[in-house]
Amino acid sequence: MNQTDDTKQRLLDASRKLFADNGFAGASVRAITRQAGANLGAITYHFGSKEGLYAAVLEQLFAILADRVSAAAARAAPARERLEEIVHAFFAFFAEYPEAPRLVLRHLASASAPPEAAARQFRRMPEAIMSVVRQGQAHGELRAVEPLLATFTLASQAVWFAVVRSTIAAMTGLPLDRPEMAAAMERHIVDVMGRVLEPAMKSA
Amino acid sequence: MNQTDDTKQRLLDASRKLFADNGFAGASVRAITRQAGANLGAITYHFGSKEGLYAAVLEQLFAILADRVSAAAARAAPARERLEEIVHAFFAFFAEYPEAPRLVLRHLASASAPPEAAARQFRRMPEAIMSVVRQGQAHGELRAVEPLLATFTLASQAVWFAVVRSTIAAMTGLPLDRPEMAAAMERHIVDVMGRVLEPAMKSA
Repeated sequence: MNQTDDTKQRLLDASRKLFADNGFAGASVRAITRQAGANLGAITYHFGSKEGLYAAVLEQLFAILADRVSAAAARAAPARERLEEIVHAFFAFFAEYPEAPRLVLRHLASASAPPEAAARQFRRMPEAIMSVVRQGQAHGELRAVEPLLATFTLASQAVWFAVVRSTIAAMTGLPLDRPEMAAAMERHIVDVMGRVLEPAMKSA
Repeated sequence: MNQTDDTKQRLLDASRKLFADNGFAGASVRAITRQAGANLGAITYHFGSKEGLYAAVLEQLFAILADRVSAAAARAAPARERLEEIVHAFFAFFAEYPEAPRLVLRHLASASAPPEAAARQFRRMPEAIMSVVRQGQAHGELRAVEPLLATFTLASQAVWFAVVRSTIAAMTGLPLDRPEMAAAMERHIVDVMGRVLEPAMKSA
């Protein structure tokens, strides 16, 4: 990685955390460049503007997750195994990027139109999951559930867990925030997908 | 309803929409009282402060949903039928209070501690759903899935759908925002819960 790429990535890393903690308006150019060890003009140089940096942060996060989901979806393996790996990709991603859920929440709450480059990365995920479901159905491995609905069942549980586990734990006292709950939830979602997509038993 | 209760409810209704659209800081006392047809001092009189009004908005919303979920959970009916009614309670609630998802998102994104009175209403929901799961398991109607995980499967799909359907539709072009999708998703979640909690078939 050369000096320029390095500065660019440090700006992305620093601003990802600052946008997540303080929101778009609350993360100042000064704070971002200081934390990235870059000069004040670096954001304009690399991303055109703070808006451009924000769009790049979302795009990179979605691209990382979409790459993993797509790789799992493209494997030469039974559909149910690929779905299991996709569930794992979500949990591994959120463990690695703990600020991602807050960033996503802030973006959703702002109700602003998603930057097109970020949206392009985002939509690779439902496409990859739906293609696994369709292939599994075509081969008789999976039951004929509407692929969009099955995809929603997988993604909604994985993402909502990452997004609300702390808040629900604080509001209810339920143990959703315990470290071991992530693994339990991951196994549960795999089990849910297996049962939802299990073909009807052949009559004996 | 007397004049005082009426003003109070009009303040709750007006501020619910304004908090959802503009956030806590963005919804001014002036705008709320004007829209509620109340005088400038009415918020202080009825709720102590704008913070108190915000807490009351969340508390009332959670109480309305919790009442419906608890009523469905307490019916004298098989566990699976009660779960089906609970799923319906979520969809009916979000249809009736379309600003609720944005309000919840904004609250989650703010990462502030939930007001205790609102949290007390909120936690009635997982408690009611878990109790139906436990009762169904005790009677052999439902499979032994961890009740908290089963509850999460129901609620995460219903809430996440309400919260993200428009954004995901805009980002992906997927038809999640079509009016008929709410009914399809509701049926799908009922189907998912049935399959996840279906007891093992007895061997012939």
